[in-house]
Amino acid sequence: MKVSFVGSGNVATHLAQALFTAGYEIVQVYSRNIENANRLANTIGALPINDYLEIKQVDVLIVSITDDALAQIVPEITDKAVLIIHTSGTLPMSILEKSASQIGVLYPLQTFSITKEVNWLTIPICVETSSEEATCTLKKLAQAISNEVIYINSDQRKALHVAAVFACNFSNHLYHLSSNILEKNGLSFDLLKPLVAETAEKIKTLPPIQAQTGPALRGDEKTIATHLKFLENDPTLENIYLALTNSIKSHKK
Amino acid sequence: MKVSFVGSGNVATHLAQALFTAGYEIVQVYSRNIENANRLANTIGALPINDYLEIKQVDVLIVSITDDALAQIVPEITDKAVLIIHTSGTLPMSILEKSASQIGVLYPLQTFSITKEVNWLTIPICVETSSEEATCTLKKLAQAISNEVIYINSDQRKALHVAAVFACNFSNHLYHLSSNILEKNGLSFDLLKPLVAETAEKIKTLPPIQAQTGPALRGDEKTIATHLKFLENDPTLENIYLALTNSIKSHKK
Repeated sequence: MKVSFVGSGNVATHLAQALFTAGYEIVQVYSRNIENANRLANTIGALPINDYLEIKQVDVLIVSITDDALAQIVPEITDKAVLIIHTSGTLPMSILEKSASQIGVLYPLQTFSITKEVNWLTIPICVETSSEEATCTLKKLAQAISNEVIYINSDQRKALHVAAVFACNFSNHLYHLSSNILEKNGLSFDLLKPLVAETAEKIKTLPPIQAQTGPALRGDEKTIATHLKFLENDPTLENIYLALTNSIKSHKK
Repeated sequence: MKVSFVGSGNVATHLAQALFTAGYEIVQVYSRNIENANRLANTIGALPINDYLEIKQVDVLIVSITDDALAQIVPEITDKAVLIIHTSGTLPMSILEKSASQIGVLYPLQTFSITKEVNWLTIPICVETSSEEATCTLKKLAQAISNEVIYINSDQRKALHVAAVFACNFSNHLYHLSSNILEKNGLSFDLLKPLVAETAEKIKTLPPIQAQTGPALRGDEKTIATHLKFLENDPTLENIYLALTNSIKSHKK
């Protein structure tokens, strides 16, 4: 089965490399920027291109680019493959409805940075397709790299993506904010690493509501006031502190 | 060396059990509620009490209660031990200045739930003391249970506590919010567990700013608008989404 990619970002890179390792032939990698196409294509024996007209017919075309870009390039990729899929957490499958006879979505529920390897086997891959034939092709492809392939519809995928933004993107930003606070006070972020690890570890066995600790949960108003005083010269941090503190208070068991 | 505890909450419980396991004699456990005192005391061969007048002279008295309660009970514990310490991340050491000839703080940088065991050896323990003698006693005690004992002052401890609230308490609450979103859409929180684990794992090797992913970082306004529309009936979630999204945008590399 021949596969090509449109896109060379974090998701495209990790997915293309995983499929290549699983034995799939990756024919082409398209990117507007030929250097980016080249960087990925070189690692998987594919041809780098930066012109849609050069896209060859394949079995599966995987379009993994930003949502804004995807809406724009739909006309350019029409009929380039039997099955055309996107990897967006947010966009409905229907955005591809005129692109091919079979369409689908392959949404890997993970955070990808180009420089950090991930273990695909445990990554949940959410698939959605337009037909039984497409389901068969897409599940086979997904199961070649992950043990956790599930079928969900576009509405559920949207909810999952929002939930993932809260649990992953926003948590990581909180790590960044706390590393800034430490740095300004002559302390290393290394100090907090065991705490970050334990916080994530806990919810493997406890529901997050039961794992909650801290001044907001205890209703420790003196500590909350001390923290707000500490943050008073940084309105952004103050605002985030208040929003999350008030939310914790309103979600008490 | 004889140690007693005032308090029987999460920190007191884990710390008392760790010191007991390390060979320290725990004489008494005070709690306003005798049943709580009993529950902890029973596990470490100590005497449960609920009257300050019954506190016996010991070498080290560890006061591990909420900050609000600590300010109030200072007069009740005066001169009950050679060294009196508290475990608060926020209160200065000076709150104990009239309580004993030696005073100090032992602040373990971890999130404790009574039902979840922790590995003390890797927990950073931050100590602060009023004298060299106190430093000697307190470091010895802390090093009996942890390999990561560091000396920091009250101002640094306050910064560290604020940072820990961001990295730990707030992250855990985000896990809870995302589990709510999934539940309302017929999806299991189990789906997100690999993502939570990887997000925390990443910052062991990458600075959080380099590990950041997601629509806010990409400036993917269409996705952000879709998410805000999805959250429009929940002002609390909408507010948190906006506060964190705007903060991520303003912290781009």
